[in-house]
Amino acid sequence: MSKSIDIANYYPAIQIAADMIAPYAVKTPVLCNEQLNALTSARLYFKCENLQRTGAFKFRGACHALLQLTSDQRQAGVYTVSSGNHGAALACAGRLLDIAVTVAVPRTAPKVKQENIARYQANIIMIEPGMEAREAFVAQQQADNGEQTFIPPYDHPHIIQGQGTAALELVQQHPELTRLLTPLGGGGLLSGSTVVARQHGIDAVYGAEPANADDAHESLAKGHIQPARKPVSICDGLLTSLGKHTFGILSEHLDQVLLVEDTDTRKAQQLIWQHLKVIVEPSAAITLAAVINHPELFKHQDVGIILSGGNVALAGEQFA
Amino acid sequence: MSKSIDIANYYPAIQIAADMIAPYAVKTPVLCNEQLNALTSARLYFKCENLQRTGAFKFRGACHALLQLTSDQRQAGVYTVSSGNHGAALACAGRLLDIAVTVAVPRTAPKVKQENIARYQANIIMIEPGMEAREAFVAQQQADNGEQTFIPPYDHPHIIQGQGTAALELVQQHPELTRLLTPLGGGGLLSGSTVVARQHGIDAVYGAEPANADDAHESLAKGHIQPARKPVSICDGLLTSLGKHTFGILSEHLDQVLLVEDTDTRKAQQLIWQHLKVIVEPSAAITLAAVINHPELFKHQDVGIILSGGNVALAGEQFA
Repeated sequence: MSKSIDIANYYPAIQIAADMIAPYAVKTPVLCNEQLNALTSARLYFKCENLQRTGAFKFRGACHALLQLTSDQRQAGVYTVSSGNHGAALACAGRLLDIAVTVAVPRTAPKVKQENIARYQANIIMIEPGMEAREAFVAQQQADNGEQTFIPPYDHPHIIQGQGTAALELVQQHPELTRLLTPLGGGGLLSGSTVVARQHGIDAVYGAEPANADDAHESLAKGHIQPARKPVSICDGLLTSLGKHTFGILSEHLDQVLLVEDTDTRKAQQLIWQHLKVIVEPSAAITLAAVINHPELFKHQDVGIILSGGNVALAGEQFA
Repeated sequence: MSKSIDIANYYPAIQIAADMIAPYAVKTPVLCNEQLNALTSARLYFKCENLQRTGAFKFRGACHALLQLTSDQRQAGVYTVSSGNHGAALACAGRLLDIAVTVAVPRTAPKVKQENIARYQANIIMIEPGMEAREAFVAQQQADNGEQTFIPPYDHPHIIQGQGTAALELVQQHPELTRLLTPLGGGGLLSGSTVVARQHGIDAVYGAEPANADDAHESLAKGHIQPARKPVSICDGLLTSLGKHTFGILSEHLDQVLLVEDTDTRKAQQLIWQHLKVIVEPSAAITLAAVINHPELFKHQDVGIILSGGNVALAGEQFA
């Protein structure tokens, strides 16, 4: 391809990112479970990014992006738009690094995710949902606070490199892996993971995407970015479209996108809660559903799976 | 005291037990969380035995007890009575070590825990609930299968030593601990943990016991074992009484029993699910409730907490 992205340069950047964020990020555990192995006839290694700071891998990219700022940029502060885990991650990283953070949050964002952002004392601005309000906010910020840096949720090398540190840790913890699988939304996590997998000789890398939010699958099939068209899924972290950086990496190096129905994701979520004893959000559980649905790809393999997050609203009655 | 238990001998046995069970047990991760630290003004280190094989620390003791059998004893098989985690732990350890296991299960045992026992192909015998049926079963087993070994749930040195390996791992993972706290039912986990804590110079060791199942608290106050009198608690793993071994260790070496109301345990369970992102049963969550209720004991301390198990029934609707 003409617009080839040089993965050889990305990989050392991920190694450096891992060192940079090490004082701030959790080295998350990898869990294995014999019931889930028996169910899938595979050996599954779950990298628990739901146990990461702020409950999601997003902290890695946000923290790395902030650590890459100049001291002038740090002084001026940063902003983003997020209805979910990226906003909380940036707010948390900003507080740790003493950088002012503004997060624009669509009014429709899940309450639990709004609370996660508010917890870290970010400056929160409520906006209307949708692309238009999002772009209007960014334009306004550029006009009013031009010295501040916009930190995008996924389509930036620093973000991708930060997210790649999860897979880097995983392959260091379990060098025996032959497959790697992550959720696929905007593609930040999967792009960084793909770079790591290629460098470490993992045979195949897959992304799991909701069947009713299959824009990445379509984009990679058609060879150019397709925007998400009214995506509908319980995987609220996977509704975004690919960006130019993530499309560039994935279109060249990803093996396959596996589409998953929400009903299968819900069952997989229950299996993870029941057997692995960790709380995952649907956007993370989609990976196990993909393994269950594709024995031809995963049977008898050592499969690394990134459980991306665990931010779900817990109903009081479930503790009764 | 006249019946002093020699802790100096117990400790090396725990070290040996750790080596013996290492090929079978999970070295469980220790999780920290800034929200829970802020809430308690302490540094909390949660040893996640809910992520242990079979979802509870009980696997450690059961596995160790089986590894201590002679080959003739292994050949003959073992049995126990359990409505919960000990039964599943013994069944699982038996399957791994190729030892036949019979578990008598009271008809009233939670379904989820019955299923956990059945999963490992143990021979299950349903009995009536209560001490009488339990003793009748054991007597019958002795008469019919005298060559089989009874593996008690907690009051045996091999069990206590096995359970102590969780605390041993914890102090090795975090040598900075100044406090250690575990749930208190029959006292197996707490006894082993107390031995480790004393050896490692931890300043104080506490057990958390349900206020309406406070027989251990009373036994230690009165200086002799008090049976549990109609204990009522959501902590179904903490309804048993102390035994002679656990009473012997705890009466000499435990600092204090902290009594906790179920309503506080329930709140703590929610906090752990929400912030730590792991599933714990009430019998495990009682520890955090004790820390919250006793700032005078834990504030500004490095507190090791053993989250003993995560076997709860998950309702389908909570995934909606």
